[in-house]
Amino acid sequence: MHGSMSGAGDGRGTRPTAHELARYEALFAARTRSMKSSAMREMMALTARADVISLAGGLPDTSTFAPELYAKLMSQVAAESTARALQYGPTEGMAAAVECIVEVMAAEQTRVDPGEVIVTTGGQQVIDLVCKALIDPGDVIVAEAPTYPGAVPTFGAYQAEVAQIEMDADGMPIDELERTLDSLQAAGRRPKFIYTIPNFQNPGGVTMSLPRRRRLVEVARERELLVLEDNPYGLLRYEGEPLPTLYSLDAQAAGRGGGADLVIYLGTFSKILSPGVRLGWAVAPRPVLEKLNLGKQGADLCTSPVTQLFVAAYFQERDVSGEAGWRGYVERLKDLYRRRRDVMLQALTEHFGDAARWTEPQGGLFIWATLDERIDTTDLLALARKSGVAFVPGRAAYMNGRSGSSSMRLNFAGVPDEEIREGVGRIGKVIREQLGLFGTLTGSSGQASGRLPAAEPAGEQSTPLADVVALPRPKQEGSARRRLDR
Amino acid sequence: MHGSMSGAGDGRGTRPTAHELARYEALFAARTRSMKSSAMREMMALTARADVISLAGGLPDTSTFAPELYAKLMSQVAAESTARALQYGPTEGMAAAVECIVEVMAAEQTRVDPGEVIVTTGGQQVIDLVCKALIDPGDVIVAEAPTYPGAVPTFGAYQAEVAQIEMDADGMPIDELERTLDSLQAAGRRPKFIYTIPNFQNPGGVTMSLPRRRRLVEVARERELLVLEDNPYGLLRYEGEPLPTLYSLDAQAAGRGGGADLVIYLGTFSKILSPGVRLGWAVAPRPVLEKLNLGKQGADLCTSPVTQLFVAAYFQERDVSGEAGWRGYVERLKDLYRRRRDVMLQALTEHFGDAARWTEPQGGLFIWATLDERIDTTDLLALARKSGVAFVPGRAAYMNGRSGSSSMRLNFAGVPDEEIREGVGRIGKVIREQLGLFGTLTGSSGQASGRLPAAEPAGEQSTPLADVVALPRPKQEGSARRRLDR
Repeated sequence: MHGSMSGAGDGRGTRPTAHELARYEALFAARTRSMKSSAMREMMALTARADVISLAGGLPDTSTFAPELYAKLMSQVAAESTARALQYGPTEGMAAAVECIVEVMAAEQTRVDPGEVIVTTGGQQVIDLVCKALIDPGDVIVAEAPTYPGAVPTFGAYQAEVAQIEMDADGMPIDELERTLDSLQAAGRRPKFIYTIPNFQNPGGVTMSLPRRRRLVEVARERELLVLEDNPYGLLRYEGEPLPTLYSLDAQAAGRGGGADLVIYLGTFSKILSPGVRLGWAVAPRPVLEKLNLGKQGADLCTSPVTQLFVAAYFQERDVSGEAGWRGYVERLKDLYRRRRDVMLQALTEHFGDAARWTEPQGGLFIWATLDERIDTTDLLALARKSGVAFVPGRAAYMNGRSGSSSMRLNFAGVPDEEIREGVGRIGKVIREQLGLFGTLTGSSGQASGRLPAAEPAGEQSTPLADVVALPRPKQEGSARRRLDR
Repeated sequence: MHGSMSGAGDGRGTRPTAHELARYEALFAARTRSMKSSAMREMMALTARADVISLAGGLPDTSTFAPELYAKLMSQVAAESTARALQYGPTEGMAAAVECIVEVMAAEQTRVDPGEVIVTTGGQQVIDLVCKALIDPGDVIVAEAPTYPGAVPTFGAYQAEVAQIEMDADGMPIDELERTLDSLQAAGRRPKFIYTIPNFQNPGGVTMSLPRRRRLVEVARERELLVLEDNPYGLLRYEGEPLPTLYSLDAQAAGRGGGADLVIYLGTFSKILSPGVRLGWAVAPRPVLEKLNLGKQGADLCTSPVTQLFVAAYFQERDVSGEAGWRGYVERLKDLYRRRRDVMLQALTEHFGDAARWTEPQGGLFIWATLDERIDTTDLLALARKSGVAFVPGRAAYMNGRSGSSSMRLNFAGVPDEEIREGVGRIGKVIREQLGLFGTLTGSSGQASGRLPAAEPAGEQSTPLADVVALPRPKQEGSARRRLDR
């Protein structure tokens, strides 16, 4: 996947000087102080370099899409609707794209009303629009720990305070969530929404169990709280049975035969087809949908009809057996990514060994690995880059930018087998060098395990909890359980 | 152009009930209270109806782009870079797209450093990102009156207070601007930026004169104020000599042979090629660019590589004489739109006559017409729609939603000659019916003129100024000149 992007290496991206910055500083909005460059962006630049094996980006392998099919679909769009493709479209999205979305949702065992769908410029825009609709500065969002690194700067830009709940192998522990909600309530604070990635979590790689899903929806309904269900990878399951979406559980509980009351669903074509089409969607209760639509008007008027019609044409494709072509493509992706996951797991055993522990995802794109606590993966990344390999340092998945400092996110989906092996090997080498510097090559604290690092046995809690920043509010009681990080 | 969009008429867009709304109301952010649906959105839905002649949208005529060329370009992209097209791209944009932008800027007689360019999801996103970088709630933006209706909800979403300066036939009067800036300064307030559309203003149709451009840049430099120069139509000039961009004047004044200090330039491919590609750009001083980039990361990660590579392929096209194909296309658009403008001007003389006055734009897409002050064009639109024609009511171009109530924006670029005549004829008919109701068919106050309605002689100032909302600030002195509308 490296070498798949341009834009770097031509002198662009030069940072402004301190003098230049000072001139404009007074004009910047307060929110810019919490708008740090996410690790994602650095990664994007990095992946443009041909000499770096990037296990960093959230990249699917788009080289698997046949150029002939791309040309054929675009020619079809040209013949039928060039003028429509090149024109503005409705803010809520084109009916033809919404039909595809309804079809994907059906594959996720989730029935949706086309009238409750908005087509967005990628899934990322849903996170932005939901924040725009709901978040005033200082409002609380509850999220998982670790959480999607791309959501971190968005939450920051809206000046949200984020309570991150450490996951274990079954995703977010709902009893922990309830304790956090209780603490917040005691402080007179009601979270605006709970942000979760239930399937093959990014970056944690874990999946929320069915009992927890049921309980999460119950909790949301008991307390009238909105949930943002981010589900980019649901169809990329490599083993085990699919679990129902939170959206479908909430719709069922609402019992009107209609949509959900409290779950806002975020979907995207990025991982089942292409990130380059920049097509995502939200399914939401109408009053919320209305606000998302208003926000989108101001943000970019409408999503590209060029890419909406391309996807619509693609969804008309049938293979020889008459099955939908996109379903077959997803099956091929699953075979490919399953194998790459296994290659990475094996490489981790070989090259990280007992110097780390990591998750074993049943789907998706990512493995979360945690090293000896003396290693800071942000520093490690600098060394790794010199060795020609990149990953996302764990801090990027925490709002405080400090927790997760010994962890890393590894993407197994975007690069070929041999690069996975080589990349993990290179990282393993710098880890061993680091540990050697500590003079404790055998003194690593971890062992390979499917559990997330935070699910440590009692008594070992010093590291993760020491990283927590307490909310600077008078009513706020000190509690090791509550983590409100800006 | 009507019938060119889908999405309406399938039951989508149903409004939530009052009961539903109440359930979610407490969760919405404060900014949503100033996020009104812009007239634009209603227009988008309207233009989807085949029985309505829409003079409303900001639509170019995309039926002029050859389907064969669309297919050919896409096949080229497929052959060369399917995987890149379908993958994520860098947040700042792909180098291939930036090259096209540098070329368009050169055609605008403006030299730019590729390192100071960011590719955005349409020009609309630049407005959003500039607000995100600069605007805290209550901050002041200075804009023209009337201003771009699509900017109104964006400014609203960022809770800006907007001082709108009435234009005359030469655009924004800079002496008026200076008086406003003085008043603001006296009240201890420094505007975050001045928003202007110097060429063939949307919706006013007027062009800022050269002396005013020079003076505006001087004023910005004297007071260290940022200017957002929105220039979607600069190359669509049907007569007269092109005037230098504010960006180039500021770069010249900076005298370092580099970019501008204080002007942020907004460009777009929407009007010279296609809105459907959703490709715009900003050129900005690096410290500002940095913030725009951070904002874009959180908003949508990157602009679609599918459409960036399409545009890049298009810019490689050469016609038989070896000239750049896109230049030839713009020439053909100019011929087409010039004729349509003339058709509309003639139809206005015929059907509106002395019941209105209107601007005579030298380029762009829009004519601004002002009727008898007793007519409210928002009400008139309801009648016009019944007659199968639509326009943008003037109120949409004012932050207070009240000024401009007797004006309308008419788009002459998007529909064929006969529909322009028919559409203007239908509006003329409802106007005459309305005036008839007032019993004063001959009592119209206006006459055809190239001047904007607000440039009224002294003594007649009651109407526009009565619509002005004073700023609710203690230090704020009452002044008829200052118009700060939220």
